[in-house]
Amino acid sequence: MEITPKLTDFKELETRYRANLINSLSGFKSACLVGSVNTKGVYNLAIFNSVFHIGANPPLMGIVFRPDNGQRHTLENIRKTEYFTINHIHESIIVQAHQTSAKYGEDLSEFDETGLTPDIGTLHPAPYVEESVIRIGLKLNDELPVIANGTIILIAEIVELFLPTECLDPDGTLNLSMAGTVAISGLDGYFRTEKICRLSYARPGKFSEVIG
Amino acid sequence: MEITPKLTDFKELETRYRANLINSLSGFKSACLVGSVNTKGVYNLAIFNSVFHIGANPPLMGIVFRPDNGQRHTLENIRKTEYFTINHIHESIIVQAHQTSAKYGEDLSEFDETGLTPDIGTLHPAPYVEESVIRIGLKLNDELPVIANGTIILIAEIVELFLPTECLDPDGTLNLSMAGTVAISGLDGYFRTEKICRLSYARPGKFSEVIG
Repeated sequence: MEITPKLTDFKELETRYRANLINSLSGFKSACLVGSVNTKGVYNLAIFNSVFHIGANPPLMGIVFRPDNGQRHTLENIRKTEYFTINHIHESIIVQAHQTSAKYGEDLSEFDETGLTPDIGTLHPAPYVEESVIRIGLKLNDELPVIANGTIILIAEIVELFLPTECLDPDGTLNLSMAGTVAISGLDGYFRTEKICRLSYARPGKFSEVIG
Repeated sequence: MEITPKLTDFKELETRYRANLINSLSGFKSACLVGSVNTKGVYNLAIFNSVFHIGANPPLMGIVFRPDNGQRHTLENIRKTEYFTINHIHESIIVQAHQTSAKYGEDLSEFDETGLTPDIGTLHPAPYVEESVIRIGLKLNDELPVIANGTIILIAEIVELFLPTECLDPDGTLNLSMAGTVAISGLDGYFRTEKICRLSYARPGKFSEVIG
């Protein structure tokens, strides 16, 4: 593929063009619905493409909250109630999941507005998405401010997990492609995936082998 | 799909099983090679699945560095030289890219060991990967410590960008599937992608439409 001459002056790009381009550069991103509840008991649901892995022991995940993305309801709810859920998005709920990014007032539940179904457990008050096949319950652990642009990174610990056992490899790896989990690129692009391979643990002197 | 009973006690899982499982929960992840140079001039290259988007203006990206992942050469190099590169991984360089995770001594270059080709620009000293079609040059901006597990999140600003123009949508969105960029799941699973659709900006009262 031919490579363009380098681009260095990002300030000169039109705002929306720059947002689309820069959002594409971090590669494929996770597609998750974040469920939370406010102090009046209204269930909030918001799509995020910024969930990432922090560590396995203790089991920790991170989420990036933009200062201006209209999703502050989720952040406020998590700060007040401490708990939230992460629910994977599969192909048949993409349109409903995307719709949760519309700016609804805080008294409206995105569950009602999109037709997705809240599912409440016994361990914490945050709603899961019944349609999702991989659902994770988390408790707030820390908040890291990104000084350069006002973004906030939340760190949270996994406290509860529901998943389809038929998608579990014997060594604990989840086959997300089999579970139907989609990937996001840029601001609004949804992708299905197909496994190429798993590769063995790499050691010097010899290339890894395909293990699944 | 049938959902298993909930899992809550992660401490009881075997270490490697837990690492595989928890690493799968954050959904699909980016597949990138990070290039850096040490003070002796040795070019370092390391695969990361933890690159994420922080913001478009200024253009910022984040990377998670595990305290124990054997990739401290990259972190030390970035701290000393301030610059590094992020290079997307496509299907034909997966085996070489994966091999950079083997523990080589600091005097060995992963470029030499894997056969990938360093490409040095004029703006900064960090090496790009000539085989990658999307290459990003970055400058260190900040370091955020995650207290809960000793992980470090680096924040960096994009200073230079090379990409294939035929993969650019008119509105600035990059079609990563067309560029061949792969996604990672878990610790060692590589996936190709296929675009389902792009969806229009969501507004209350009406579901979004397919725009590409």
